[in-house]
Amino acid sequence: MIIVLKAIATKEDIQSVVDEVRQCGYEPHVITGVARTVVAAVGDETTQQTLETLASLPVVENVLPIQKRYKLVSREAQAETTLVHAGRHCFGARDFHVIAGPCSVENLEQMLSVAESAKAAGATLLRGGAYKPRTSPYDFQGLGEEGLAILHEVKQRTGLPIVTEVVSESDLIPMLKIVDVFQIGARNMMNYSLLAALARTGKPVLLKRGLSATIEEWFLAAEYLAKQGNSQVILCERGIRTFECATRNTFDISAIAIAKQECNLPVIADPSHAAGRIDIISALSRAAIAAGADGLMIEVHPHPEKAASDGPQSLNPEQFSLLMQDILPVLSACGRRLSKPDNGTVKTDATNP
Amino acid sequence: MIIVLKAIATKEDIQSVVDEVRQCGYEPHVITGVARTVVAAVGDETTQQTLETLASLPVVENVLPIQKRYKLVSREAQAETTLVHAGRHCFGARDFHVIAGPCSVENLEQMLSVAESAKAAGATLLRGGAYKPRTSPYDFQGLGEEGLAILHEVKQRTGLPIVTEVVSESDLIPMLKIVDVFQIGARNMMNYSLLAALARTGKPVLLKRGLSATIEEWFLAAEYLAKQGNSQVILCERGIRTFECATRNTFDISAIAIAKQECNLPVIADPSHAAGRIDIISALSRAAIAAGADGLMIEVHPHPEKAASDGPQSLNPEQFSLLMQDILPVLSACGRRLSKPDNGTVKTDATNP
Amino acid sequence: MIIVLKAIATKEDIQSVVDEVRQCGYEPHVITGVARTVVAAVGDETTQQTLETLASLPVVENVLPIQKRYKLVSREAQAETTLVHAGRHCFGARDFHVIAGPCSVENLEQMLSVAESAKAAGATLLRGGAYKPRTSPYDFQGLGEEGLAILHEVKQRTGLPIVTEVVSESDLIPMLKIVDVFQIGARNMMNYSLLAALARTGKPVLLKRGLSATIEEWFLAAEYLAKQGNSQVILCERGIRTFECATRNTFDISAIAIAKQECNLPVIADPSHAAGRIDIISALSRAAIAAGADGLMIEVHPHPEKAASDGPQSLNPEQFSLLMQDILPVLSACGRRLSKPDNGTVKTDATNP
Amino acid sequence: MIIVLKAIATKEDIQSVVDEVRQCGYEPHVITGVARTVVAAVGDETTQQTLETLASLPVVENVLPIQKRYKLVSREAQAETTLVHAGRHCFGARDFHVIAGPCSVENLEQMLSVAESAKAAGATLLRGGAYKPRTSPYDFQGLGEEGLAILHEVKQRTGLPIVTEVVSESDLIPMLKIVDVFQIGARNMMNYSLLAALARTGKPVLLKRGLSATIEEWFLAAEYLAKQGNSQVILCERGIRTFECATRNTFDISAIAIAKQECNLPVIADPSHAAGRIDIISALSRAAIAAGADGLMIEVHPHPEKAASDGPQSLNPEQFSLLMQDILPVLSACGRRLSKPDNGTVKTDATNP
Repeated sequence: MIIVLKAIATKEDIQSVVDEVRQCGYEPHVITGVARTVVAAVGDETTQQTLETLASLPVVENVLPIQKRYKLVSREAQAETTLVHAGRHCFGARDFHVIAGPCSVENLEQMLSVAESAKAAGATLLRGGAYKPRTSPYDFQGLGEEGLAILHEVKQRTGLPIVTEVVSESDLIPMLKIVDVFQIGARNMMNYSLLAALARTGKPVLLKRGLSATIEEWFLAAEYLAKQGNSQVILCERGIRTFECATRNTFDISAIAIAKQECNLPVIADPSHAAGRIDIISALSRAAIAAGADGLMIEVHPHPEKAASDGPQSLNPEQFSLLMQDILPVLSACGRRLSKPDNGTVKTDATNP
Repeated sequence: MIIVLKAIATKEDIQSVVDEVRQCGYEPHVITGVARTVVAAVGDETTQQTLETLASLPVVENVLPIQKRYKLVSREAQAETTLVHAGRHCFGARDFHVIAGPCSVENLEQMLSVAESAKAAGATLLRGGAYKPRTSPYDFQGLGEEGLAILHEVKQRTGLPIVTEVVSESDLIPMLKIVDVFQIGARNMMNYSLLAALARTGKPVLLKRGLSATIEEWFLAAEYLAKQGNSQVILCERGIRTFECATRNTFDISAIAIAKQECNLPVIADPSHAAGRIDIISALSRAAIAAGADGLMIEVHPHPEKAASDGPQSLNPEQFSLLMQDILPVLSACGRRLSKPDNGTVKTDATNP
Repeated sequence: MIIVLKAIATKEDIQSVVDEVRQCGYEPHVITGVARTVVAAVGDETTQQTLETLASLPVVENVLPIQKRYKLVSREAQAETTLVHAGRHCFGARDFHVIAGPCSVENLEQMLSVAESAKAAGATLLRGGAYKPRTSPYDFQGLGEEGLAILHEVKQRTGLPIVTEVVSESDLIPMLKIVDVFQIGARNMMNYSLLAALARTGKPVLLKRGLSATIEEWFLAAEYLAKQGNSQVILCERGIRTFECATRNTFDISAIAIAKQECNLPVIADPSHAAGRIDIISALSRAAIAAGADGLMIEVHPHPEKAASDGPQSLNPEQFSLLMQDILPVLSACGRRLSKPDNGTVKTDATNP
Repeated sequence: MIIVLKAIATKEDIQSVVDEVRQCGYEPHVITGVARTVVAAVGDETTQQTLETLASLPVVENVLPIQKRYKLVSREAQAETTLVHAGRHCFGARDFHVIAGPCSVENLEQMLSVAESAKAAGATLLRGGAYKPRTSPYDFQGLGEEGLAILHEVKQRTGLPIVTEVVSESDLIPMLKIVDVFQIGARNMMNYSLLAALARTGKPVLLKRGLSATIEEWFLAAEYLAKQGNSQVILCERGIRTFECATRNTFDISAIAIAKQECNLPVIADPSHAAGRIDIISALSRAAIAAGADGLMIEVHPHPEKAASDGPQSLNPEQFSLLMQDILPVLSACGRRLSKPDNGTVKTDATNP
């Protein structure tokens, strides 16, 4: 930690800061600058008490942390990418994965139709929400357990592993039997109680970046999972909230590049939620691949104009099929290979990926 | 809903949109403009299926909702301010309330010391977190049930009602006996499962605005509580995330003014989290009062430089006492009166406010 | 400057950074931390070459500046507030000033009508744009020199000093004779060429904060003027651009508090542009006063619904008169006094404030 | 325009809005909804007086514009991409262009060295600032005319056309003889006086998106140029200001995709300013190509750690050469071709591109 003192700080002030630093278990080094005195505090910021509280002292102008706050998920801690297993698929290696499906599970027919067309087009995992955290209480809130049953049925018939959002610890038990990858949505990235409960399941987690989470906070949410014993985490960039309204969110392509560089977890992109409109999903998908993403999550609905949620950003099966063709040349330019779908049905033991 | 068609839309396209609108239960009105055709769809947007999905049609440029999405918490639904009862205090009337206390409960001595000095300075409710949602898993996570016991003890001794944050449905049972006002923190404003669980308790809720929640989303989170039967909600503006780093968050003073105008719930301000620094807390507090706030929530710690969390933004008891003097002339200019502290101890039946 | 090295840095790497630091004229201090090595570079950051370029070295993780970048306008350089003279008025002392008028000068009748009613209500300076920087080239761009002539006429008749925006160096000559305070609009805060030209005039400048300017960048824009010899600068907070759309901009009340504390220039607020809607202008005005503002700038138009620009945020004369009454008790609670209008006409020598 | 009335609006209120709409030259259509009455106003929003001022009426809740505000630069006005000629190069067709060079022109040796290595690596235009708009008045402000002379010399020797920033109308005359493409920097995107002066030169303009400009505002700045007779405009996305600090700006890759779709001008990306760090420039460059960009602008400096400005984000020649190799497979996957450098020297008649 670097503690910057105000220009007005006297010798006594400096000494009192030095004492405080030492008392907190750090070794203080005083550096007398031209305009400011600085106290460098040597110690392990991640295990010792933070010195940021010293900012409350009247003579302290600023406290600057030096270390990164995440450890287990960093490339410094582990240089190679963690392989995350979802069904028979593996994220983080050469294979590139496309997770497709509607925002919400509406009925069996809808899900089967999407699953089959998405699989035919090259998707290898199925998404669909049974529990929907909606901004308005008057919006469709998901089918709940009925939705889980539909997902189970579709998984049996198509063999596609299931990625679905969990919004409450109390839904975990019924979900465990069906779900291959638990999705933490943007609204719950900082719901650390839910992350703790998920960590205990040992199941893979798709961790969406929060609406206004910094990249570091996103990594720290993953660190919560890793610290509690679950490193099977896939990061998902889905756009952040900014002043720009031409898109639903601002797709932060740099976050993908930085995550690939500084974090040892696989990273995928969700251009559907970023764009909020279908006309640029192909461009964003291609860009995500070029920036290093390990996969995509795409909203597909048989009839977007009638979707219970997120219709404006959902592709219909034909558009999705075109998208899958659009990305092929970029995948190959990046040395990636589209993962192959399983052809058989999945074994029922979903709890053991 | 207003559906704006693209310039390229043909007569057939327009007709197909009209049909779709009618099929969704709305009455379509076609308006042929100079550059665009517009279809106005008459119907109740809050109960009928949204037409926003029509944006997925290739000929639709834009879909503009007309109605506000919140109802129960609006001034249109109820012109007078909802009175929210916390212990013997009432938010939303002429009395102005100051909730004071540390970020985290650390030990009995700390809490007693803060409670007594804060009460002496004019605070009428005590804050302090037993469960702390911290960005890093390596930061202090709160004392949990031990913290609740401390809060209980301090409440018995000082008579100050307790405001404390809840982060998980599974903590509700032990909290119910002790807590007077449940705080929903910024990170959990969109944790709708937790809101549902809180609604069932019937207890007052202090609802902090999310880090990047729009004002409308904040009102909609309150609407979740109201729709599920709990209108005892106090809104709390605590700053939003923007590009500006001179403050921890950007205190959105307009949100207070708008909330007072459009929403029927009491509104308080948390300048401590907004500022993230102590030197402007007095100015922000005075501004909040001038903008119409019904109360303040202020972080106070006996030794901010040793606080387990949020030290840089915590006032010490002396600074807090000065703040209370600073706000008096503005309160009186605004026709407000500082609420009087109870002098006796609180009855143990905290579940019945 | 603090140069943080990556964990991988070898002894040789550290030495090469140390050499570089010394070569740039700073004195290097190496601090070996637990996880990182840090090089503290002692020297005057504001006069010597910046070391931020060292961030381009592969072993450098981060370079942290220590000093503030503004000097002349800081309270450290000058503790008392600079008094800025506009006509016979003085900003920065006890007197509080209200600048009122329409967004654009449209015609003599409009300006006279606004000026007279605003003066009657207590405004002491008149605003009105002759040159309008509009987002769309199809919007009204201002009357130009014709507008200046109208302003001149109204100033003669009412004695109100004129505050008006300058958008180009080439308009300065005709403006000099008429204008009492040059306004730099939000879009031009970083137009440093224009600032340089204004500095040469020696005339007072009202410096609006840029749409997305940090507080430090705003102070640095003022520093450009001060460094070039013109310290007659009034800062104006007018809201920043964020994700929130309920207001046109997010009024950053903290910026006023921070400016009053760290900068020696007077600070006023422009709640009209911040709000973009009339219903919260009174609340924001009161809040600005409570936070320490030295004045207000308010858009007033005789017929807002017919205004050539900014109609939605313009008060009509009656609303403005109510606003002036609303602010009185807060002014008095803050120990401020509304400045008194001149009753006579202004002498024509406007160039000598 | 759609005028949404408040729920409280009476028949008389509605009639008065209808009258107002008609008086402004629009044809009003009243639509009586379930919760609100809406008045649709038919007329040309881009030529007639805006109705947004009606928002100032007490019974009006909201005014929603329907038309887009830009015309000449839209794909609706012209489906094919405008070809912009810079030296012998053409932006907007199949050829992909890389503009390389340092932030600031420092001396002849530096510029020659960069120009030659960049050209050897495949760059076809040279950038370098003689006039630098710097946030702090204490930072290097550019060499001015001496810098122009250096650019001229380097252009003569290498044949690379020159792209350089203009910050003031008064510098145009000396620049005209040397410059092939005038760059409008992010800080000046809304300096409409400067845009007007540039339009009169007829020279190509590289228009950087403002720090917090919306995509629509960026197109409108281009529309200012086009409306005044200069459609030789290249748009340049360089990142926007958001809460995320891991990058200097947030590279808005969606803006590229949307610009390619809705605007008829060529679009390039400046990943250097977006990233503010060198380690992700390659990833962002590849992403920009995949999203449809027509070119790149890359900061290259012979010794980034000694650069007078923007060192942390400048590549050295070797890194630049690697970048050029990195982008090749993506270019080819996107059907693009790197433009070929001229081998001869450029004719001195730079004013006639």
